[in-house]
Amino acid sequence: MQHCDTLISAGWCIPVEPHGLVLTDHSVAVRDGRIIDIVPTEEARQKYAVGVLIDRPNHVLIPGLVNAHTHAAMTLLRGLADDLPLQRWLKEAVWPAEARWAGAEMVRDGTRLAIAEMLLSGCTCFSDQYFFPEIVAETAVDLHMRAMVGTPVIEFATAWAKDASECLNKGAELVHDPYAEHSLISTCFVPHSTSTVSDQSFKALRVLADQLDKRVQIHLHESRQEIEDSIVATGKRPFEVLDHLGLVNSSLMAVHAVHLTDKEISRFVEAGVSVAHCPRSNLKLADGIAPIQDLLDAGVVVGLGTDGAASNNVLEMPGEMRTAALLAKAKADNAAALPAAAALRMATIEGAKTLGLDSCTGSIVTGKWADLTCIDMMHLNSQPVYDPISQVVYTVQPHQVRDVWVGGKHQVENGELVHIDKNDILRRTAEWQQQIGGHKDRNSV
Amino acid sequence: MQHCDTLISAGWCIPVEPHGLVLTDHSVAVRDGRIIDIVPTEEARQKYAVGVLIDRPNHVLIPGLVNAHTHAAMTLLRGLADDLPLQRWLKEAVWPAEARWAGAEMVRDGTRLAIAEMLLSGCTCFSDQYFFPEIVAETAVDLHMRAMVGTPVIEFATAWAKDASECLNKGAELVHDPYAEHSLISTCFVPHSTSTVSDQSFKALRVLADQLDKRVQIHLHESRQEIEDSIVATGKRPFEVLDHLGLVNSSLMAVHAVHLTDKEISRFVEAGVSVAHCPRSNLKLADGIAPIQDLLDAGVVVGLGTDGAASNNVLEMPGEMRTAALLAKAKADNAAALPAAAALRMATIEGAKTLGLDSCTGSIVTGKWADLTCIDMMHLNSQPVYDPISQVVYTVQPHQVRDVWVGGKHQVENGELVHIDKNDILRRTAEWQQQIGGHKDRNSV
Repeated sequence: MQHCDTLISAGWCIPVEPHGLVLTDHSVAVRDGRIIDIVPTEEARQKYAVGVLIDRPNHVLIPGLVNAHTHAAMTLLRGLADDLPLQRWLKEAVWPAEARWAGAEMVRDGTRLAIAEMLLSGCTCFSDQYFFPEIVAETAVDLHMRAMVGTPVIEFATAWAKDASECLNKGAELVHDPYAEHSLISTCFVPHSTSTVSDQSFKALRVLADQLDKRVQIHLHESRQEIEDSIVATGKRPFEVLDHLGLVNSSLMAVHAVHLTDKEISRFVEAGVSVAHCPRSNLKLADGIAPIQDLLDAGVVVGLGTDGAASNNVLEMPGEMRTAALLAKAKADNAAALPAAAALRMATIEGAKTLGLDSCTGSIVTGKWADLTCIDMMHLNSQPVYDPISQVVYTVQPHQVRDVWVGGKHQVENGELVHIDKNDILRRTAEWQQQIGGHKDRNSV
Repeated sequence: MQHCDTLISAGWCIPVEPHGLVLTDHSVAVRDGRIIDIVPTEEARQKYAVGVLIDRPNHVLIPGLVNAHTHAAMTLLRGLADDLPLQRWLKEAVWPAEARWAGAEMVRDGTRLAIAEMLLSGCTCFSDQYFFPEIVAETAVDLHMRAMVGTPVIEFATAWAKDASECLNKGAELVHDPYAEHSLISTCFVPHSTSTVSDQSFKALRVLADQLDKRVQIHLHESRQEIEDSIVATGKRPFEVLDHLGLVNSSLMAVHAVHLTDKEISRFVEAGVSVAHCPRSNLKLADGIAPIQDLLDAGVVVGLGTDGAASNNVLEMPGEMRTAALLAKAKADNAAALPAAAALRMATIEGAKTLGLDSCTGSIVTGKWADLTCIDMMHLNSQPVYDPISQVVYTVQPHQVRDVWVGGKHQVENGELVHIDKNDILRRTAEWQQQIGGHKDRNSV
């Protein structure tokens, strides 16, 4: 008999690769944090000497969900200012709050809250963009969460850096050490947008990203206003600006990509640009609805992100996946657009591809890290189960997530965090609420 | 001291009427199933001799949610056929399955599953349209759930009635006895749509509904196809057909109302027609996005419905409310459209208005039935709480519903059903899955 550390036996297993496959009564064997086998449960019990046996007969085992775009620390600003138009939201609420509060401690506490929330809802990997990325990376390691940590690049002064040049210098440090070969942490550069980063900084960024072989993410064509402003300022749409600066290539991920011409979609395909789709954020800020089925038909890789909690307001991926599947149908005027299996891909392997992490996570495949999520289907809202993939996408609520493993580490068991002190997070969050909220809402009596 | 059966003390109470109000540390006193008082908790403890004290310091108390449109029994068809265009979905999946399975027992078991699911997600009143409405009514009484039971009217033969005429006769019986003055059950007529009910039947229906003083609900302008087909067949849009038949008045509720001209919206206002908005169903079937902010601006009463589980696929109202709030912003191109407080109204008092039940439910007001839902905010995804209304609409997941009362009866406690046997429902559902599903999904191996 061979040894495995953990054997997870599930009623259904959806490996995502191959596409659309549902395995019944299969087991996933894990050793040294990696998936070493996927076999029928009966066979597995004879083949392996098992350290820990996890028996989940009424559950669906899926790859851990990949949140391709968020600003984790903004959980602490959740609900501070809702139902405002984009510009007022940014200028009157978000930017002043960030200017006042976004320091190292806020980033640490907000990122802890975010990671805990994401784990509890089945996410095992997130791509983050926020100030103090070194704190984000440290916190992710501390909590054992897989993360793509983006170094923000922005011209204006923040508590973290005085200008874009300092952003780049700090980013370069983060990349080299201590995360060069880390099993959980990857890094990239995240210039905020073409309106907040100068051409000169983009050029320096391009050289640096090429030297260090790092990917670049950028908010792109999120709103019509952004595009119109760019045309007024430069005569070009933001994507054209990036193309002229030499940033359009297969290491580029466009976040949002709500407004695209057919020509731009063709250029995405030609250059290998990928997309992070954030449907709920796009709705909430009235940005519009991204043409997801068109992008997929053209061959663009599209991952799924929640965006930050100030514009969503939750970081749970099951609901984001459902929203994506529903919204794509209305946008494409076709009820067959983005079917369940494609939505699940978007929330897993396709997201991993947008981050360049598909060789290590995003599907249940031998050799990859054991980033796994087990979902309990014995809830009334998920019954009956005619089609497990449909049920996962169209019915599952976050609290049905019973287990989560990150690199083989059992992070959520019985729907509760195993290694993370939830009460401590709640306590710190309450302190921030006192500080940031100041006093009770003015509607209260 | 005065007596009350139950005193519910909540950290926050959102009565919905008056609009936008948040009461902190208030208590709701309940006697004989009705709300008798809403007072500061400190005062309540001195004023009342309390039967059962419910202390919920970290919770928000809201009116029970009102699901203004569903087909409850279709829970048993949940996930049977997803990602299909509307016509194929109806003709190849739903109608054949209904023809085969929709008998009295299926309706009883499916409705039980639906009521249990709705209660667990904070809903205390639903408006149903399905065959065997007498079974729906019986089941709602049996489970102590408030229901508006619609008698379906359709020309073609079903297991329940051979034609529209028999539908009307059976509906008239249901209305008279035993539900004429029932505290939980109200009744109405629900002609399926203008394409499936003849002019003659509509005329008979109008006379009957007038005589019995009953409201009428109808699927209206759900898809472009429906409108185009009507124009081809009659030269008129479906709403115009109804208007010519004399059915357009303040007792009419239009379900869906996705596609409306400005003139039609004006006519809605003039005649007092209300709307049941079903955003997730409209997305899933690629029907489009209803112009909700336009309807509200014009003064139309709009409630919120989940539609049936075959086109959603869940009956939980918190997520439907969030989707409505998000989607209205994209449709109106305005991030300030359908703000949180308005979305909560839609899911409560406005829904009650569309059913003619606003004098007895839909807000926390003295004299109304104690239809109440208590939501636990001490979940990471709802923290911090700057604005309780925002958090309820934009962050709450169904399992945060800790308590539900219907007419003062404690139906959900600690997130579990108190008087309903969940395991029995799961067992019956599994039996139906065996029967209806026949064999394992063809993707399975």
